[in-house]
Amino acid sequence: MKGKVAVIGVGMIKFGELFEKSLENMIQEAYLNCLKSVDKGIDPKEIKAAWFGQWSGGYIGQGSQSGATLASMIGNLDIPVTRLENACPTGGDTFRHACLGVASGLYDVVLALGAEKMRDKPSAESMMAAGGGGADTGWHPSWMLGQGGPVIQAMHAVRQMHDFGYTMEDFARVAVKNHLNGTLCPFAHFQFKVSIEQVLNSPSICWPLHLLDCCPQTDGAAAAIVCRADIAKRYTDKPIFVLGTNVGIDHSQLWDRNSFVEQPATVKAGKGAFKMAGIKPADVDFAELHDCFTNTELLNIEDLGFARKGEAAGMLKEGQFDRNGSRPINPSGGLKAHGHPIGATGLGQILEVVTQLREEAGGRQVKLKNGIGLQHNIGGPAFGVSAVNILSRTS
Amino acid sequence: MKGKVAVIGVGMIKFGELFEKSLENMIQEAYLNCLKSVDKGIDPKEIKAAWFGQWSGGYIGQGSQSGATLASMIGNLDIPVTRLENACPTGGDTFRHACLGVASGLYDVVLALGAEKMRDKPSAESMMAAGGGGADTGWHPSWMLGQGGPVIQAMHAVRQMHDFGYTMEDFARVAVKNHLNGTLCPFAHFQFKVSIEQVLNSPSICWPLHLLDCCPQTDGAAAAIVCRADIAKRYTDKPIFVLGTNVGIDHSQLWDRNSFVEQPATVKAGKGAFKMAGIKPADVDFAELHDCFTNTELLNIEDLGFARKGEAAGMLKEGQFDRNGSRPINPSGGLKAHGHPIGATGLGQILEVVTQLREEAGGRQVKLKNGIGLQHNIGGPAFGVSAVNILSRTS
Repeated sequence: MKGKVAVIGVGMIKFGELFEKSLENMIQEAYLNCLKSVDKGIDPKEIKAAWFGQWSGGYIGQGSQSGATLASMIGNLDIPVTRLENACPTGGDTFRHACLGVASGLYDVVLALGAEKMRDKPSAESMMAAGGGGADTGWHPSWMLGQGGPVIQAMHAVRQMHDFGYTMEDFARVAVKNHLNGTLCPFAHFQFKVSIEQVLNSPSICWPLHLLDCCPQTDGAAAAIVCRADIAKRYTDKPIFVLGTNVGIDHSQLWDRNSFVEQPATVKAGKGAFKMAGIKPADVDFAELHDCFTNTELLNIEDLGFARKGEAAGMLKEGQFDRNGSRPINPSGGLKAHGHPIGATGLGQILEVVTQLREEAGGRQVKLKNGIGLQHNIGGPAFGVSAVNILSRTS
Repeated sequence: MKGKVAVIGVGMIKFGELFEKSLENMIQEAYLNCLKSVDKGIDPKEIKAAWFGQWSGGYIGQGSQSGATLASMIGNLDIPVTRLENACPTGGDTFRHACLGVASGLYDVVLALGAEKMRDKPSAESMMAAGGGGADTGWHPSWMLGQGGPVIQAMHAVRQMHDFGYTMEDFARVAVKNHLNGTLCPFAHFQFKVSIEQVLNSPSICWPLHLLDCCPQTDGAAAAIVCRADIAKRYTDKPIFVLGTNVGIDHSQLWDRNSFVEQPATVKAGKGAFKMAGIKPADVDFAELHDCFTNTELLNIEDLGFARKGEAAGMLKEGQFDRNGSRPINPSGGLKAHGHPIGATGLGQILEVVTQLREEAGGRQVKLKNGIGLQHNIGGPAFGVSAVNILSRTS
């Protein structure tokens, strides 16, 4: 992968509760923003294949979606388009498939686009879908046991408190940092600050997690155009190169897990991506990590090797993960501020990584040293699916 | 693609109304059959990535499926696994993704597996899902207009009758041929012969299509292992090479179609695959074509260039598409005899193509000249998605 694939354009829409926009409206808007972002210009006909990340279609009753949905909406029926779904990492895996497509040698320029309507359903059903967290109702009983996202992460949080002495204040500090960053990101669903007190005083969702420890339910769409690295300069003066891309899998059942202070899917996705990239966690300047819940961000930081187990909360308190810290985590505001429109989430994170690496992030720009950023998702039944993509200014 | 990727193993289960088997049972059985088919043996750990073709999960209420479902069932949590869905061509596109994965250079040996439970739901819902034919309920109103598979294909059949003088007997002849072939295939759901009279006397589903013009609703699973062509001989003395793989897309709305005697998705998928393979339709010895309805097989034969428009029915009557004809079509018995467990269908066809090219098809073996076979799917909203894979004994 290294040196083979580059990102030449990224685009998204402002995430939010978008009752006034259809899935199709959102797809078109993200696509047009993505095309416009290619600074030397691109003829849409140069895009030779596409992948559509979309999770909720079948699950919350919006009907099955195929590649034809995306093809119709971008007005290009002359290319192969495939829909894929991999639970909460759908967006990150959609980006990976675009990279595989280019690396295969079959397509020089391709599109990855994710879009999700999470709010157009009765809230009970919508919450259930979110609660199910990509779980299925077949062999995996987690959904039937009420083991949705908040419940599973609350169990992790309790164990983090028990094993490491983490506190609810530590978790709340993730929300404080990410919402502050989110006030500077024009695409974030929520653009307000929160205090530790506000988080702790917000309603309890599943002890020890409060409402403000959870990311919101959100509609959104995001896209990226990737191409052969050796032709990227035709399209942009600032191509961003893909160093590593991977998906990690773990058990679909909580009872098979050995630990609740580690999520093996993330560990595996990270290790594979770092190996492919030929770098170490220490080489990464900043990262967009899947903070669906505040405690999850601390798990992710440790699982990816940015902190030793039990040390992330202390480093957070010291400000190391702040926007101007030694390794900013979620400079965009993360899922906490953006929400989590599943198929779109990972591609929105890719947009942030690319924007930061191009030093075009304005008020939320982080300092770059090696010019390397990382994107991460985790989710699915028992949080058994993860995606990691590593991007760089140099190939 | 040409010369890069080879099939080293294929496996499936007997398709049918499998109330006694879960989705997971079917996955495991197809996977084990696939492993066993690798004649020089393979350590399952050599498989480095997998793709899971599964359509109905979300759509008919079985919950969302991610890559973790397949990973759990094959007992391998150490590789990236992605679920994909592309309407009725899900199986063919799953195979394509396995090929892309190998061609990308990231994975030497990978698995494509498709599985579908179509019968475990109340029949009204199941029929609706089948009727919807992969249509969604958002922007595409075909499902809401009652434009399911039989309805859409009946409109094509009427136009084939009007433009070409095709008759209900011509359509019935497809059923006669394919059911005869199916009696020789151990994996077929239905293993009985039918006569033209039986087809014409079976209940009308949507004029001019009768019950026996339609493929059955069926449960099933099928798989293939593909690897780098240059290492294929480690695993088998009879590798089968992938010459071309493509997906074609067309409008998602019937009102955008210019013709009802052509399905542009198939035309596009075929043209791209033939170009990639560097061959012409005339070079193909035999093909497994998506005969979800009898008239559809005639459309497919013409759309892929095996007959000129309006000539397929006559060539069929002459026996050219029979198992011992000049270009056998659906020697396995096709969807007519196998049924159509969506994610599995395309991979079941791949198994037939590989088995025939290895000359291991026993009583249903076709004569080979160039040693090239083709697999084809069509479906989705307004039949706007198609997949074509071209396989060969030589690279």
